[in-house]
Formats: sequence, C-alpha cells, structure tokens
Amino acid sequence: MLVVGENISVVSKVVGDAVKDRNAEPIIKMAKEQKNAGADYIDVNIGPATKKGEELMQWIVKSIQAEVNAPLALDTKNISAIEAGLEVHKGTAMINSVTGDKDKLDILMPLAKKYNSKIVGIALTEKGVPPDVDSRIEIIMNIVNSALEYGLPMENLYLDPVVLPVAVLQEQVFNCIKALKIFKELKELMSLPDDPRTIVGLSNVSQSSPPGLKSLLNRTYLLILLSNGLDSAIIDPLDKELMNAIKTYDILTNKILYAHSYLEK
Amino acid sequence: MLVVGENISVVSKVVGDAVKDRNAEPIIKMAKEQKNAGADYIDVNIGPATKKGEELMQWIVKSIQAEVNAPLALDTKNISAIEAGLEVHKGTAMINSVTGDKDKLDILMPLAKKYNSKIVGIALTEKGVPPDVDSRIEIIMNIVNSALEYGLPMENLYLDPVVLPVAVLQEQVFNCIKALKIFKELKELMSLPDDPRTIVGLSNVSQSSPPGLKSLLNRTYLLILLSNGLDSAIIDPLDKELMNAIKTYDILTNKILYAHSYLEK
Repeated sequence: MLVVGENISVVSKVVGDAVKDRNAEPIIKMAKEQKNAGADYIDVNIGPATKKGEELMQWIVKSIQAEVNAPLALDTKNISAIEAGLEVHKGTAMINSVTGDKDKLDILMPLAKKYNSKIVGIALTEKGVPPDVDSRIEIIMNIVNSALEYGLPMENLYLDPVVLPVAVLQEQVFNCIKALKIFKELKELMSLPDDPRTIVGLSNVSQSSPPGLKSLLNRTYLLILLSNGLDSAIIDPLDKELMNAIKTYDILTNKILYAHSYLEK
Repeated sequence: MLVVGENISVVSKVVGDAVKDRNAEPIIKMAKEQKNAGADYIDVNIGPATKKGEELMQWIVKSIQAEVNAPLALDTKNISAIEAGLEVHKGTAMINSVTGDKDKLDILMPLAKKYNSKIVGIALTEKGVPPDVDSRIEIIMNIVNSALEYGLPMENLYLDPVVLPVAVLQEQVFNCIKALKIFKELKELMSLPDDPRTIVGLSNVSQSSPPGLKSLLNRTYLLILLSNGLDSAIIDPLDKELMNAIKTYDILTNKILYAHSYLEK
C-alpha cells in the first residue's frame, strides 16, 4: 500500500509556529522522520491559507524537497496555493483533496492533468458528509466522470470514501467500508479503462476516542479496509504498531517474503 | 463471531498429566478461565486416544460440564470416543473435525445429525494438505454434499479452509484466505438452502514463528479472515490483544455499540 504521512499540518503547534516564522527546520525534520518510518508521500497541510497561500506553499514544498527526496501531498482549500505548489514540486505530486463540487472539479482535474499529479477525490461536497452509502457512490461517480472528461489516467485518481469518528458516528464507519467495496467495482460498473485507486484519512476514525484506544482503532480499521481492497492511506507512520500491522498484512497476503526478522526491516 | 477456546489439549503437559491421573481440577480451571475470557465453546483435544478413548472422553465431558456451563468441541481422531462424548454431552456439541474422506464422513455426519451437534469439515484428506485452492474447494464440496445427504442443517456445518504456518508455507496462508472467500459463495454455487458457516484453527499460522511474533500474526490474520467473512475461530481466548482486536472489529463493523469503555466489557 501507498503510505502518506500525515504529520505536517498547521493544526499542530510545532508546524504552525514554524510556518509563521518561515523556519523550515522542524518541518524538514518531520518529513525525514516520516520518510524513514516508511512514508511514500509526505502530506503538507497548510490549512485554509487565505493569506499569502501561494508563497507559503512554494516555500514549504521547496524547503522540504531541498532536503528530503520524497513526493508531497499538497493539502489546502486554497486552489491557487495548490497550483503554486505544483509549479515548484519535483516528481509526481498528490493533490489532497477535491470534493465532488463541479466548480472545484473543473479547476483541479485540469491542474492534475497538466502537472501529471495524483489527485484525491473525496465522497463529500460543500454541503457536508453524505448520510448514506448511495450518496457517497453518487458523488464519487461524478468525480470519476470529471477525471474521464479531463483525461486523467485512472491510476492517478484516488477515491476516498470518508472516514468519520466511531465515537460520534459509528454507523458511518461501517458505511465507509461498504462504500469502499463498491468503489472497487467501479471499473466494471462504469466500464472504466482501469481501476481507480482508493485512499482514506485513517486517523479520523479515532478522533474523540480516548488516547489509549486511538492506535488500536486505527490499526484495526486499516486492516479491515486493506482486506476490502484499500490501496493507500494517510496515516501517522511513526505509530510503530500501525506500521507493524501493515507489514504483517503484507506477509500474510504474500506481498513480501516472510522472515523471522520481518518487523526489523 | 463464535469463539472456540483451544487451550485444553493433551499436547500440553498440564492437561496430559491431568488426563493420565484423571485429575479434573486443572482442566476445569482452564475451561472456566476460557469461558470467562469470552469463549463460546471449549475445545477438548484428547489426541489419538487409541486406548480407553470412550471412557476418557466421557470423563472429561462430564467433569467439565458439571462445573462449567458451556458446550464443548470434541476433538480426537478416535470416532467411537466422539460418539461416547456426544452421548453424555449437554447442549449442542461440536465435532472437531472431519476430513474429506468418505469413510469418515459416512460415520460422523450421521452422528452429528443424530445428536444435533455442530461439525467442522476441514479441507484436507488422509493424504494430507491439498496443494492449491481448487483442491480445497473440491474436498469441501464433498463434505457439503455429505452433509446434505445425511440431512445436516447448513447452520451446523462449519467449513475450515486449513490454516498453515506462515513461517513454513507462506503461500498457503494466502491460499487459505482465497479458499475462505469461495466458501462464502458456496450457497450460490451449490444452490444450498442456507450458508454453511466457516471456521479456522487460528494459531497454526504462527507455528514455528518466534514467540514475540505469534500474537501479532494471529490477530492480524484473524482480522483479515473476519473481513473476508469468517464466522468462527478456534483460538486462545486468554490472548488479551487478540480478544481486544475482535471487540474492536465488532465495534468498527457496527456489531456492538461503541462506548469509550468497550474494551473493559
């Protein structure tokens, strides 16, 4: 599976302060740690970034990629900050994420195509989270159709069924699994040239749960989702038990070779 | 899921000694512990039991059920010991297990029918473990046909795709998942009146792996199998992390209600 490291977010005080002071050092450190722990992509969440978003995104992308050889997931609601980031990004970027609203799709899909970047399409709209599985499928189908319209290869499209907190919306957590299963059938249902990929923002599931439960909820949910065909997840790669669960999953499904020492690799 | 506690086996020194001395106390203690930890059935493995098997099985069944209110899974290759156990067992027993050999099926299926007991049919024969998924399906179809022939209700038939050690036969571990998926389609494939149930002997997966890996391998594999439709497993219910994984699975798939304290129940 493709691991996207979630830790660089302006919501955290360390990152918030670093961004305010344009002090790249703590951010580079977090990017390195996550890469070393197994992240394939590093998510860079700069929040709404309504002021100087373009300059901020370019600064953070260049600062990280000058020191860490990893592609980034650009994460902000500010669309021109996304484009500014894509302009300076080296390698295949990921746009995280686009909701099923037509006005957004009509800007971000062409950008993803132009810069040959991956893009996450998420099963919600500006109106909020859909109440049932069918509405998620409907939104996702619109996103897939938009990708087709703008000529984005299916392998660059990552569909997100929306993970919600089990402590608040337990039934929706099960709905997310059901939606994921149907996403895996879209190739056939929509006669697509190839399977779109799937992704989740995992940690949402344990939001509002006690700290002692978070890692257990996260890794258990990830194993259920992987068993249902998940291709990628935005996670905390520094959670050792979570990464061990992923390695063990790969062993048991014959993706990597077993050795008594497989956890140490 | 239905939990079958695996700990009472003559292979263990404590149980072996207790059986030899007809000292029921340690066996009753193990049955109680497993029941309190969440076991629905208590497996009683008396080995080949070629000498005095009938008397031994009746002694152990009566000793446990006099003190612990739980049904038992009778586990031995000695068929007359199985029948002797069924004669004195209270409630719905489970016969664990019958291979796909016609001579065995022709004795054990009628017994399961006569005593209204559950029976585990396992995807191997006296010749050994089948090399591929298709051969497992073939054996299991013979078992299902035998159950139909003798009028056993599908809800009492538990199909076991055979778990093997990942340290020795990694590919077979993946084959077991694939076979399980097909077992879940048998109702449609064979036009059955109802779904047969599925079961595994979980701990086999971590046999020959270092002690530090066993619990992780067991619980990860169980979550993969549950996500693929497993109904029941023969496990060590005293493995707290394994039982927590099962509870968390039930929470995330909306089978039991979430509470911050769900692990403590």
